[in-house]
Amino acid sequence: MDENLRSVDLAAQELFQKASEDNIETLWDRKAALKTQCGFGEQGVCCRICNMGPCRVSPVPGKGVQRGICGATADVIASRHFARMVAGGASAHSDHGRNIAHILHMAGENGNYKVRDEKKLLEVAGRWGISTEGKSIDSLAHEVAEAALNEFGKPFGSMTLPPSVPEQRKKVWEENKIVPRAIDREVVSIMHATTMGCTADADSMINLAMRTSMTDGWGGSYIGTEFSDILFGTPVPREIEANLGVIQKNMVNIVLHGHEPSLSEMVVLASEDPEIKTLATKAGAEGINLVGICCTGNEVTMRHGVKIAGNFHQQELAVLTGAIEAVIVDVQCIFPALANLTRCFHTKFITTSPLAKITGATHIEFNEEHAYESAKSIIREAVENFKNRKQDRVQIPQYKSQGTVGYSNRAIIGQLDRVVNSYTDKPGTFKPLADCLVSGVLRGAVGVVGCNNPKVKSDYGHLEIIKRMIANDVIVVVTGCAAQAAAKAGLLSKDAATKYCGEGLRKVCELADIPPVLHMGSCVDISRILELVGEVAKILHLDMSELPVIGAAPEWMSEKAVAIGTYVVSSGLDAFLGVVPPVTGSLEVTDILTNRIENWVGGKFYFETDPVVAAEKMLARIEEKRAKVEEIALQRMNITKYDDLSPGF
Amino acid sequence: MDENLRSVDLAAQELFQKASEDNIETLWDRKAALKTQCGFGEQGVCCRICNMGPCRVSPVPGKGVQRGICGATADVIASRHFARMVAGGASAHSDHGRNIAHILHMAGENGNYKVRDEKKLLEVAGRWGISTEGKSIDSLAHEVAEAALNEFGKPFGSMTLPPSVPEQRKKVWEENKIVPRAIDREVVSIMHATTMGCTADADSMINLAMRTSMTDGWGGSYIGTEFSDILFGTPVPREIEANLGVIQKNMVNIVLHGHEPSLSEMVVLASEDPEIKTLATKAGAEGINLVGICCTGNEVTMRHGVKIAGNFHQQELAVLTGAIEAVIVDVQCIFPALANLTRCFHTKFITTSPLAKITGATHIEFNEEHAYESAKSIIREAVENFKNRKQDRVQIPQYKSQGTVGYSNRAIIGQLDRVVNSYTDKPGTFKPLADCLVSGVLRGAVGVVGCNNPKVKSDYGHLEIIKRMIANDVIVVVTGCAAQAAAKAGLLSKDAATKYCGEGLRKVCELADIPPVLHMGSCVDISRILELVGEVAKILHLDMSELPVIGAAPEWMSEKAVAIGTYVVSSGLDAFLGVVPPVTGSLEVTDILTNRIENWVGGKFYFETDPVVAAEKMLARIEEKRAKVEEIALQRMNITKYDDLSPGF
Repeated sequence: MDENLRSVDLAAQELFQKASEDNIETLWDRKAALKTQCGFGEQGVCCRICNMGPCRVSPVPGKGVQRGICGATADVIASRHFARMVAGGASAHSDHGRNIAHILHMAGENGNYKVRDEKKLLEVAGRWGISTEGKSIDSLAHEVAEAALNEFGKPFGSMTLPPSVPEQRKKVWEENKIVPRAIDREVVSIMHATTMGCTADADSMINLAMRTSMTDGWGGSYIGTEFSDILFGTPVPREIEANLGVIQKNMVNIVLHGHEPSLSEMVVLASEDPEIKTLATKAGAEGINLVGICCTGNEVTMRHGVKIAGNFHQQELAVLTGAIEAVIVDVQCIFPALANLTRCFHTKFITTSPLAKITGATHIEFNEEHAYESAKSIIREAVENFKNRKQDRVQIPQYKSQGTVGYSNRAIIGQLDRVVNSYTDKPGTFKPLADCLVSGVLRGAVGVVGCNNPKVKSDYGHLEIIKRMIANDVIVVVTGCAAQAAAKAGLLSKDAATKYCGEGLRKVCELADIPPVLHMGSCVDISRILELVGEVAKILHLDMSELPVIGAAPEWMSEKAVAIGTYVVSSGLDAFLGVVPPVTGSLEVTDILTNRIENWVGGKFYFETDPVVAAEKMLARIEEKRAKVEEIALQRMNITKYDDLSPGF
Repeated sequence: MDENLRSVDLAAQELFQKASEDNIETLWDRKAALKTQCGFGEQGVCCRICNMGPCRVSPVPGKGVQRGICGATADVIASRHFARMVAGGASAHSDHGRNIAHILHMAGENGNYKVRDEKKLLEVAGRWGISTEGKSIDSLAHEVAEAALNEFGKPFGSMTLPPSVPEQRKKVWEENKIVPRAIDREVVSIMHATTMGCTADADSMINLAMRTSMTDGWGGSYIGTEFSDILFGTPVPREIEANLGVIQKNMVNIVLHGHEPSLSEMVVLASEDPEIKTLATKAGAEGINLVGICCTGNEVTMRHGVKIAGNFHQQELAVLTGAIEAVIVDVQCIFPALANLTRCFHTKFITTSPLAKITGATHIEFNEEHAYESAKSIIREAVENFKNRKQDRVQIPQYKSQGTVGYSNRAIIGQLDRVVNSYTDKPGTFKPLADCLVSGVLRGAVGVVGCNNPKVKSDYGHLEIIKRMIANDVIVVVTGCAAQAAAKAGLLSKDAATKYCGEGLRKVCELADIPPVLHMGSCVDISRILELVGEVAKILHLDMSELPVIGAAPEWMSEKAVAIGTYVVSSGLDAFLGVVPPVTGSLEVTDILTNRIENWVGGKFYFETDPVVAAEKMLARIEEKRAKVEEIALQRMNITKYDDLSPGF
């Protein structure tokens, strides 16, 4: 395959070329080696849930084998597999959230982890109904952590929903019976329902999957974000650089890769430790250069401005530069292939989590009780490895872009306050944004999220959709690998407003001093987007499904994306998937997800592999919702005309 | 396929013949239609965890595609799939246990559910460390229920282990880091670890799977059994009949199928309701005949003597008799095919659980708060359907066997008390059994459990192994579909001792007045076997792994069996699988499960599809353990010779 067809990224193209020349295997080679992928699997009609199988049924009704041994149809098999993907994804996110909650529970003035954002702690305590009076910050933190931990396993009642959920939305969830119980329970429950001989009805299965997905977005992920902000600080706008050009020839380069910030935060601290710095100098390096990949990268770029080396598809490419002393990983989205690849160079591949040991890696288990020392000893491995680098094998592509990251909701409100008419409006709310959406200055908002997938030329899906949105006055928020694609392409820079945007969005960007594409964080931080959408809906007395807001995952590959898509749809928003999920072997499941589910919850899935076509459909759908939004909003707010909204813009 | 090759059961053969003649599809037809099953799936080397795939790698090292797109090897892919099977199985059992705990929590003197076994409640309260003083039975029950429910989701600490776990075994678990935390948490944790880009190391993956499996046997299943005994009574020996011949031509026949006893217990009660009885008479029936299939059948036969219609492979055959008014199902192991099949007859197919809705079935959700009325309304559907039966289409095979069921551990102790030498020994313990095992009167004990699977001629695997064990003085305990196979074959009758057993076992059976094959209940009741083995080990100061005790699942198909096998092995016992699990595409995983795991926990898996060969290996393995058992036991008990044990036999 022509290297240039693999990625739109010039840095990536350069290194794919290098890999070819050096005969080093990358994901694209492995994909090519697979040849045609199994059609039964791709269409979701292969069942391996029990050991009577595998049973592969025909994706064509009435033609070929219609049932597995137990009698499961394509509808049963595909819906069950979809549900299990949701379970896998929700588990990953919720377990991440739980881990952060445990860290908050061990935080203390004299410990390794401290409460860095007391304001956020007080806010979160409020939402859990915990009185703050007369309590020390630490003891409040522990109480809040316990309240959250209780959400994972409480035997009775339903999951505590954040205050950002509009009342209308809660009602929709209650009517559809998708308000979850305890977070972990829903995973166990759906694993039970998907085991042999339980649910065999696509409607019911998707409904259960929806309930499970809610434990992710409005549960585990939400907790993960809130508690990370409490522990590590709520992000504020800061300038960063992105792409492989951030790797430094004369420094100890350490890639931080994975998802949970508990380790990487400590690595950031430890990299500033005088002992480590001295060690680096002694090793002949100019210093230590941390660079991020995937969501661990997003976490530390949002809070510390750590540079972004790249996204999911660049994990191998970073190593290929020959200039990486260590790839330190925690959990999720880590190629096992890094073990073999790093052996082609001097690079140390260090796994740190008991949930993500990898054969061939050096496992140094991160000890959260002695987090700082643990991080230091891990980073020391990297520094000591600098001497082993073969500088003649180093090739760092000289591409990088500037951008602004750090758009937590507090940061967004901070920017919006710049445009508040202080005579008529209160600062500190999303109202100016709501005003823009009602007035049509902004046509809508789109969240572009998710992974890379070799079924799509890397970053192409993300960038096409983002560019087409902002050109049409649709503001874009990004997380995960989509955010990193945007960063690398310069779309997170404020200049992008002039370069790519329609009139309305450009004006908004100038007035609020923001880029047209707002980096809101990691994949669990999609909870920030949920909060934002919920709060805007509440201001306008609308349900979330009535807003001209859409989610898109143009290049998704992970089960986490399936969980995300499902909670996004369950929250009333459309979700555009640029890679077709393995359900198309069932007309029924496809119809539920892309059509009937809208009758249940107001949002639906679109499967659209061409990002250009997807963008057109998204814009059309936004305009469709727009047609009613002003009328409904004014009616519900009991005002008669748009001026009463006192738009700040 | 010749009908006689499908099952060793004559009743089954007769009805397969009928199905052929009437051109009605059964599982065997669907199996035949599949032709060759996918080899990648069968060997566990197809990965569909993320949507870059499906990735199918070669099961042959060095030949063909060795890695998936992310770099996952056959070892990674197979171990991950295995772990997910454990997660699915453990979820099913634990969710069942949780449900029973919730029912205990709603039990009350005036409610539908009552505490029927106060003695058991007091025992269980003791094991949870709950004081019983001054508490009413109901409030104690609620407190015990809450303690158990807490085990599913407690944020801190490890799962409370039952007192039946020997200290040596706990140490093994601690050393191997497989003592689980909260039950649900382990499922979420392993779903996380198996998602894309986490664990990619077979050793680590299997270790995590072992920890998860522990939440089943020693957690959810254990709770399920204990609480079912409290609510519905601890089983005592009772005579029953088994096989399709128990279906009555002139009665309203209702099949109870599934796993959780909460509904079926109420159906048993409601079937005695005068209103229902009158309704049946009015409909022209001589009465109501409840018959059981799968574990719901086991639950009600153990506690009420409800007749056994058959096991997993007979669910379709029961309907084929044409004499079934309703198949009432709860959860697990229910063929979706029953929806189509019942439409060929007058039979109503009634689903009752929100976790097991089936397209084409009549869904009448069982309401546990109004359990009795709910059961009555379900049973009414069946009675009213009697008039629709076409008697000319009825064909009930006239085969049934007698047997004794109900061997809870309390019942076993009751039988053992018959042989206690009251001058030297205390009654009320398993000591006589321990004595027999040490002395060699019994060579060992084997638990035969699990499903049917069309990869094996139905019941053939179960019966071959059971018969060979008892012929060689190995006592057999059975649960699940294996128990029903034994029942149908007459092996649960006391006559079987004379007919099939070796000298030692025959003598034991006579003295204790038991059959050589003890029906211990449903699949969750394997916890009874764990308790029994643990207690016997404690008496002898042995670890469980030192006893000549083995588990076998000759015809397994469900993920539950994978969870069971894994906790059995983790508990130090060998597990013989008669159907090869989908891991053989990885030499590494196969080696771990069938070899190296023994170094970790003292037990290992055997994959042996020929039950004759399996039986030989089992006997050899038992003798291997026997060689040391007396010596070690005497040494640890600090006695010098066998006579000091004062054997009762």
